[in-house]
Amino acid sequence: MSECLVIQTDFGVSDGAVAAMYGVAISVSKDLRIFDLTHDIPQYNIWDASYRLFQTISYWPENTVFISVVDPGVGSERKSIVVKTKSNHYIVTPDNGTVTHIQKFIGIDEVREIDETVNRLPNSGHSYTFHGRDVYAYTGARLASGKIHFQDVGPVLNPTDLVQLPLTEAVFEQGIISGTIDVLDIRFGNLWTNISRELFLQLDVKYGNTFEVTIENSTRQVYKNIMTFGRSFADSHLGEPLLFVNSLDNIGVAINQGSFANAYHVESGLNWKIHIRKVVDISYN
Amino acid sequence: MSECLVIQTDFGVSDGAVAAMYGVAISVSKDLRIFDLTHDIPQYNIWDASYRLFQTISYWPENTVFISVVDPGVGSERKSIVVKTKSNHYIVTPDNGTVTHIQKFIGIDEVREIDETVNRLPNSGHSYTFHGRDVYAYTGARLASGKIHFQDVGPVLNPTDLVQLPLTEAVFEQGIISGTIDVLDIRFGNLWTNISRELFLQLDVKYGNTFEVTIENSTRQVYKNIMTFGRSFADSHLGEPLLFVNSLDNIGVAINQGSFANAYHVESGLNWKIHIRKVVDISYN
Amino acid sequence: MSECLVIQTDFGVSDGAVAAMYGVAISVSKDLRIFDLTHDIPQYNIWDASYRLFQTISYWPENTVFISVVDPGVGSERKSIVVKTKSNHYIVTPDNGTVTHIQKFIGIDEVREIDETVNRLPNSGHSYTFHGRDVYAYTGARLASGKIHFQDVGPVLNPTDLVQLPLTEAVFEQGIISGTIDVLDIRFGNLWTNISRELFLQLDVKYGNTFEVTIENSTRQVYKNIMTFGRSFADSHLGEPLLFVNSLDNIGVAINQGSFANAYHVESGLNWKIHIRKVVDISYN
Repeated sequence: MSECLVIQTDFGVSDGAVAAMYGVAISVSKDLRIFDLTHDIPQYNIWDASYRLFQTISYWPENTVFISVVDPGVGSERKSIVVKTKSNHYIVTPDNGTVTHIQKFIGIDEVREIDETVNRLPNSGHSYTFHGRDVYAYTGARLASGKIHFQDVGPVLNPTDLVQLPLTEAVFEQGIISGTIDVLDIRFGNLWTNISRELFLQLDVKYGNTFEVTIENSTRQVYKNIMTFGRSFADSHLGEPLLFVNSLDNIGVAINQGSFANAYHVESGLNWKIHIRKVVDISYN
Repeated sequence: MSECLVIQTDFGVSDGAVAAMYGVAISVSKDLRIFDLTHDIPQYNIWDASYRLFQTISYWPENTVFISVVDPGVGSERKSIVVKTKSNHYIVTPDNGTVTHIQKFIGIDEVREIDETVNRLPNSGHSYTFHGRDVYAYTGARLASGKIHFQDVGPVLNPTDLVQLPLTEAVFEQGIISGTIDVLDIRFGNLWTNISRELFLQLDVKYGNTFEVTIENSTRQVYKNIMTFGRSFADSHLGEPLLFVNSLDNIGVAINQGSFANAYHVESGLNWKIHIRKVVDISYN
Repeated sequence: MSECLVIQTDFGVSDGAVAAMYGVAISVSKDLRIFDLTHDIPQYNIWDASYRLFQTISYWPENTVFISVVDPGVGSERKSIVVKTKSNHYIVTPDNGTVTHIQKFIGIDEVREIDETVNRLPNSGHSYTFHGRDVYAYTGARLASGKIHFQDVGPVLNPTDLVQLPLTEAVFEQGIISGTIDVLDIRFGNLWTNISRELFLQLDVKYGNTFEVTIENSTRQVYKNIMTFGRSFADSHLGEPLLFVNSLDNIGVAINQGSFANAYHVESGLNWKIHIRKVVDISYN
């Protein structure tokens, strides 16, 4: 039986690009199961592509094959690779940093460079601009359907030679936890930080405790205020900001039924820093 | 053979949330058939979620399992339920009014509360903010794949105890039919009312007849003008407003190849009222 | 085994319309494989629907059944048809020009008009506004699943009687190649012209050569400047415009990691003309 094929791109679904990839994959094997991770990665945003893979991969069965095509260097000398993770998933992608989070937080078992002399859609023409269709969909589909095995992809590469995006870790110093805004929960405008629940608990935390949260980007402070730590959004009033544990067991910042990101024009990335400090609970008596 | 699983959320598909739900479901059973109703329900809009289920459910085979996650109360004490409809479909959802239209227009056969001590993704961590993945996708997939039966969901609830949104019925009084704008046909900007074709026909209607249509919200009248009743958009001129029978056999209001909703800033909901009165056909002779 | 069913519409996926079509199709045959081409065709834009079919159809297996519903004339006397292409694909669609590109560039083997007395969803009510669900999804699903054969669709039509959109061909005259902006690569803002690679090469072209590109619409010139021909985006600097061979082996115009369409407010269609002229390479010495 075929393994699942899950596709992520920054192509959107408003034209025929993704449907052409699907067609190539189905032509490889008509009973292939194909799914979408998302096609709305912001254009050329390798960081978000890396994060979304990390966010979802562990919920899929072992041997699922992921294709991720966010590829500003298409047509350049950047390599095309297939990564086998320590969690036994495969990722077909350009070597441009897309597996950064996977490599750090899950681990890579083996990497192979795609040999395009054999792993490229036959008769795929003179265009050098759609490797998503001609190389990645074709190779991912052949791998997921068992038409080729991992060793048929091409020569082994050293995982330490892969392109990596810079990643920083959250730290706890002098009573303050400092991290970055890794990504947004887009639809709801929540901030997802790189501060793990475990690190946050070093502040000696209980639900309902109060914290001072500061957010700054490379040029200025954009937010500094008090909020509580809630078990869920329902623990806070409508429109109230709160800290919570998100679905990846990291600390998030939200406004209950509002958009924190929109309210304070917060974006994500390494230059978006967050600092959290416990404050003595205010008591009125 | 597995039953179909159909998922509706207000999550959007721009990040990894829906893909994580799919992964959980596929991990339950690799040959599960999974489909999307929509993931574009406006955030926290339980009314629209209820309507979209009603709009589509009867076109799916019996025993199809629907998951609907529009859940502003996630993490609160609101119940999680599975509803068996009189049409033999299942709906996995928070008990917050999402089955209002189904209950009124299709009927509920039996309701069970999800017992999360057995029906929750194993090792799903300390986050209380993603029941869509950890409870609903997991339970819906197990039900659709036959890993559990309906009676394994949890204890029976009384359908009359479910949370219900207010619903009003269209009325015919003194020659005027009055109803509400239930929802928009989003892409085309048509208004969908709660006035059934049967009720409308009490105005003694033929295609081509002329009607005065008034639309008002809680604060003011937003539209009052004459339009004809057409068998289809093609019966009217480009840019002309018309009344028509929509795909749910209710009366709709449209501008041929334009957006009525945009043109007059009409929205939907119980405070958006519409009144229709037949006028004597104007004859030029 | 069922053939694949691929659906294209201008309905969007924000309400229940597409999900109702899926439900009808799955009710015809539960093991049908259904995929999306796109549901984001601009409303009523038959040209784009025709182009997206042409862009993708050849990547799908033979006997795949496509449904395309961009149907401003729904409810009028326009015919409903099924087209068998010379590439052995089927297209279920209104006869309104949707198969224009297919007919010209791939060829039509046979056309049949849908006989709605037998090929319409039973009990599909009094609405004349959703043939996508009641006629096209139902007929496409029955064809893909083998419940009916092509000859059961209805009577044969003459392909030359089909509605056709005007199509112009690019020409090479007096050292200038002139064509049209057929469509946009939406997410990236690239322009896709109707100038084939073969025609372009008549300018005696090598990668790195320089060209003067002029773009005009029916009222004015909107762009005139110099750019180079690159093997891929990676051959140009960030933000630099370039000519390239797109994934259909036609000439495209792009800004590397920017949006050419947004930058110069370029749209697509027959009244958007492009002229390309080779210029002597500028040398600095």
